[in-house]
This record gives sequence, structure tokens and C-alpha cells, in this order.
Amino acid sequence: MDELLLIPGPTPVPAPVREAGSRPMTNHRSEAFARVLRTVLEGVRELYRTRQPVIPYASSGTGVLEAAVVNTLSPGDRVLTLSCGAFGNRFSRIARAYGAEVTHVEVEWGTGVPPELLEEHLKKADYRAVLVTHNETSTGVQNDLSALAGARGDRPALLLVDAVSSLGAIPLEMDAWGLDVVVTASQKALGCPPGVSFLAASERAWEAHRTARMPRYYWDMGMVQDALRQPLTQTPFTPAVSVFYSLEASLELIRQEGYEAVWERHRLLSEAVRAGVRALGLRPVADERWASWTVTAVWLPEGVSAEALVGRVRERYGVVLAGGQGRLEGRAFRIGHLGYVRPQDILRCMEALGAVLRELGVAVEPQAGLEAARRVFGARAAQAV
Amino acid sequence: MDELLLIPGPTPVPAPVREAGSRPMTNHRSEAFARVLRTVLEGVRELYRTRQPVIPYASSGTGVLEAAVVNTLSPGDRVLTLSCGAFGNRFSRIARAYGAEVTHVEVEWGTGVPPELLEEHLKKADYRAVLVTHNETSTGVQNDLSALAGARGDRPALLLVDAVSSLGAIPLEMDAWGLDVVVTASQKALGCPPGVSFLAASERAWEAHRTARMPRYYWDMGMVQDALRQPLTQTPFTPAVSVFYSLEASLELIRQEGYEAVWERHRLLSEAVRAGVRALGLRPVADERWASWTVTAVWLPEGVSAEALVGRVRERYGVVLAGGQGRLEGRAFRIGHLGYVRPQDILRCMEALGAVLRELGVAVEPQAGLEAARRVFGARAAQAV
Repeated sequence: MDELLLIPGPTPVPAPVREAGSRPMTNHRSEAFARVLRTVLEGVRELYRTRQPVIPYASSGTGVLEAAVVNTLSPGDRVLTLSCGAFGNRFSRIARAYGAEVTHVEVEWGTGVPPELLEEHLKKADYRAVLVTHNETSTGVQNDLSALAGARGDRPALLLVDAVSSLGAIPLEMDAWGLDVVVTASQKALGCPPGVSFLAASERAWEAHRTARMPRYYWDMGMVQDALRQPLTQTPFTPAVSVFYSLEASLELIRQEGYEAVWERHRLLSEAVRAGVRALGLRPVADERWASWTVTAVWLPEGVSAEALVGRVRERYGVVLAGGQGRLEGRAFRIGHLGYVRPQDILRCMEALGAVLRELGVAVEPQAGLEAARRVFGARAAQAV
Repeated sequence: MDELLLIPGPTPVPAPVREAGSRPMTNHRSEAFARVLRTVLEGVRELYRTRQPVIPYASSGTGVLEAAVVNTLSPGDRVLTLSCGAFGNRFSRIARAYGAEVTHVEVEWGTGVPPELLEEHLKKADYRAVLVTHNETSTGVQNDLSALAGARGDRPALLLVDAVSSLGAIPLEMDAWGLDVVVTASQKALGCPPGVSFLAASERAWEAHRTARMPRYYWDMGMVQDALRQPLTQTPFTPAVSVFYSLEASLELIRQEGYEAVWERHRLLSEAVRAGVRALGLRPVADERWASWTVTAVWLPEGVSAEALVGRVRERYGVVLAGGQGRLEGRAFRIGHLGYVRPQDILRCMEALGAVLRELGVAVEPQAGLEAARRVFGARAAQAV
């Protein structure tokens, strides 16, 4: 039985993307690899909707959150973190670890950050930076990043954005919205193995970099930019070559599908997932206003453990879901619909979920989720006619 | 024409190791992946010759050099760096970036660090740590790490070792020699794609970690160790899954060949390379006493540029060599004989090198290098009879 990976990352890597990653190893300081590097960085830059250069690192998403902080801030800087879950909290902890004076504002898990809340805090104090999670993977909450950027307005506070589980899947306009640092990673919407992460910085953020005094070496975006600008495009430290091969192949697939079409697919998948779980008598953690396009956290039904539900769905139907994270551990489970996920994958997931809930003794019509999800996709197909 | 990659890393990745890396993506927090993680960390631990746990990161080798520093030191700590090239200098710069008081001792490029030099410096002042490069990739110099550890003796200074281009290929006994932190990466002797790096720390280094005050989050080895110790072995942040698949396959190949046999192969390859280049009238950068088992830097002959030599050897013969690094740029070229490199690869390299030197107008018997290298391997084969 083929495993269907529906966790919020790593996401499924299609066969051609995996095969690209298995090409023979090469010299990372060669014209051949420079071409791969340029193609990938240019492709990612298009997804960022920015004119700024994209800076790559060999790291996971958490590494590049650290890069966002240490490249722009100094110890003692006042920082406002707007958190709606585990990843927002992590962003805060990183800033604190490097000596920022962090004001940590955490909204109820399941809701996003109202732009008014940001405005209110910015009126009360001057901050050097605002840290925000575009899409909170632990709760399945999607912030209105455009509105948050609007609430920041022309204040000097830098807007540092964790776009790890959003960029490529959810609309994000780095330049048009005035975002200052945006970071993401290879194993989410980009549908590649983990190991490469990306950062882009606005003019203001590059300006901040020149005076920022948090210690940095590996994360120094200036050093990366200098290496990229050499006649032979390269990175200062050895890049994750095989993941770059995969990225080149995957970005081409994404370009072929069309950036806006990819966004719309994610929106539709998320709508179908929510319709499906509701039809199975379950309740998403996120308020509908904040429902994420890439991950849906769902409260566990009374008397059903995450182990039993997630375990059975995997063993019996080959569908891999995630448990709850942080304070939702043991209380919720999560469905990732991010990257190379198609309507038929969601249908298979809903069928498995309905069957397992019934097996576990939940009074439910096992096909109800499947049918509700199918109606969402069907309505869309009908519209398209 | 198949490319033969003879740079000091990334090293050639054999087909079965590449294929392992292209397996479908999986949940990194699952029993199936926990088994991969445990197998890899156990295999790497055997190469380290240590009873300490091995800590993995998603990063290049430079990242894990940073991890060695920030996990054990505090700003203001007195640190002695013994450098014999570009990577020793980098280790120093990292310690300085995080506020260590660095005494930087740099020996002439082409020589290693005499143990007496370390002893002399340790008599003059108290240091919190000594930073040393086991094998200096820029010059092809191999330090006598066992003797350096002996010179440190029972002084309290921690010995932090860059073993990126040595571990697995050159004897290293972490526990027996009393090394405190040893770091390495996936793309060197381990013969895998870049993207994963490793650190192991002695009891003393773990003790130091508890009070070390350099800021850290992504590199915090305590956080990694806590995650590894959970009932479901995992990493705190998403690991480079595909590289772990490759590592599992590669470590099995290395185990099958035999750890000591792998060391001996590297020693023999390096002997053949030096005999070959000398027979072609060239001179290695490293004194014979310090000659590296994994990389040989060679002075360029009068009137021949690195571009011409390295470029032609690649274009005409498919053999990929590296240019000079740091202050050897334009003055030397480098032959990597690290990881999955076999005697026939060295013979192909020597044949190409001889032919290209002749083409470039150097007065040389083109087959002399090939024959000299063959004699080294032949003598060994004869001994084995």
C-alpha cells in the first residue's frame, strides 16, 4: 500500500523531483551548479514576489527563523511577537535567546492575530521589529498578513515573517505588502526534501543588517550575498546539493501549474477538508475566519486518542496524519494539505477517517466526509464548466 | 563521459546511496524514521569511537563548527586557535563572532601544528578551549591529533576538533584521545549528499554546556539530545530526511568494507597521489610529515594557471579537481581522495593530469604519474599476496 503523506511537512515529494535529487554529486563551485543555484533562487524569488535577492541556507525552517532575527537585530532591541501557536512561541524564544527584549503577545490558539491588536501595541510602544507567523502549523491558523502589514503601516518596526508553511501555497506579496524579512523552507509548499531554507530581506532589513549586533556567522546573509554575487554564483558554505537538484525540478512543476492555480488548489483542498471533517461530526481547531489553506487541526472526538485515530488511519489505509502539537498534543490531530496534494488524496483521507472513526465506536456515517469533500470539488468542477 | 569527482567534498555518492536518498518522503516523527535515525546515529558513533551520543543537525560543516563553539563557551572566554589554513581561520572567526577572546596561532601553510607549540602556549596562559582542525582541507595538511591531545594533557582546556574532512577516513579516537567536541558532515568521508552534520561532546563538554552563555537556539545540543531521548527518537527540528536515508545506506557500505580497511585505503590513495604528482614533476604543498590522507594540495607548475589545468582535466577527461583555496587560490590545485574513491580513480586522474600538463607545454613524461601511482598500488597488492 502506497503511503499518502498528509502531515504539515515534510510534504509528498513527486517521483520526478526525487529522481532529480538522486543525480550524481557535483562540484558545488562549478558553472554547472551555479546554473542550478541561479535557476532555483530566481524561481523562489518569483514565489516571494520580490525584487530582492533570495538567500539560501543549509538548514531546517527553524534555522532560518534564527537567521531572520540575528541578521536584523541587536541585543536589547525591543521586539513584539504576535503568536498564535507553537511556531510563534518558537520565534519569540529565538529572539529572547539572542538578547532581544521581547513583548510576547499570544492570542487564543485557534484564532489569528487581529490587525487591530498589532496597531494597539504599536501605539503603546516603539518596537524595533514585529515577529509574526504567516501560517501557524500547530493550530491550522492563517493570519491576514496583508492586513497585519497594513496595520504596521509606515512605522519603523521591521516586519519579520515566518512563511515556512505558507510561501508558495498561500498568497504572499513581499514587496507589495512591505514585508521586511520573509523565510521559508524546502519541505513545505515547495514539495522537496528538507535541508534547504530561504530568506529574503527588504532594503530596510539590509540597512538594519549593517548595524545589527547579534552575533552571527553561519546565518550572516551578507556573507551569503557576497558569495552569490561572485562571477561564479556560489554559496559561502557547502549547499545541500541534492535538495537543490530537487528544487530545480519542483519549481518547474509549480511554474507549469501556475502560481495562482497552486494557491487556488490549496484554498479548495482546505475547503474540502473542513467540509469533510464537519460532515464526520468533527470540529476544526481554527475559527472559520482564520482557517489555513495548508493545514487543518481538528479536535479529537470524545473518547478517541490521537494514537488510536492516527495509528489506525495509517496502518489500515496508509494515510499519514499528524498528532497535535504543543498544548494541542493529545487533544487534536492535523491534516496537512500542503505541496503536492490533489483532490483524490483528500478523498482517500476522508474515506479512511470515516471508516476508522466508525471502527473506534464513534457514531458516524463513514462515507459522509468523503461525500462532503467530493461535493466541494464537484461544485468547483461544475463552476469550471 | 562519466564525471569523476575528486574534490575535497562533496565526494562521490555511489548509486545505491543516491537511490536510498530518493525513497518517498516520510513522517520524520514516526517509528519508521526513528529507526533510520537510530541506525545512522549508532553507525556514526562507531566511527567517532565514542560512548557519547551523536547529535545531528541540518547544516553544512561550517554550521556544526559554530555549534561546537556556542555549546561550550561564553563571551569573554579565552580561546586558543591552532590554525594551519583556511578552515582553521574560519574556526577562529566563528569564536570571535560570538565574543570569545581568541589567541590565533597560525603556522606556515603546508605544515601542521607541532604538539610542542600547543604545550608552549598552554604553559603561557590558561585557555578555556583549544580549537584545532584535524585535517586542513585548504592545504592538505593532517595534524597529529593524538599528539595534540597528549600535549593538552589533563589541563582543563577543552579540545574542540574540526573533523569535517577526516572523520571516517583518518584514524580518530574521540574517547581514547580525550577529545571534547568533534564535528563532521555528511558529504566527506561518509559519501553522502551535503545537508547533515554531526557533533559529539565529552562529559566535560556537556558539563561546559550547562554554564556556557553564548546565545544559541538552533545549535543547542541539549535540545537535540532531549528530543533524541524521547520514547520516539526524533530531532527537535525537521531533519534532512533524504540525506539520512543515504547515510543509512552508506554507513552499511562502510561497515562492510571495515573501518580500519577504509582508513588504510585512504592512506594508500594519498601515497599513490603524492607519488604520482611527484613523478609528474609537481610538488605537494604539505610537507611529507603532514601529508593528508584525504586531500592533496599541489603547487601549480610555472606558467600554468589553475583555470587551464583544472578546466582541461575536467573538459577533456571528465576528472573534477579543485582550485586552490584562500591564499593558495591561483597558486595551487587540489585533488580530493576522500570517501568512495578507488585506486582506479587515482590512476584515471594521474593519466589525465599527465596528458594535460603535456598539452599545456610542461616538459613531462605524460604516463609517469600513472606509472608511479600504479607502482604504489602494485606494491601493496604484492604485499597482500
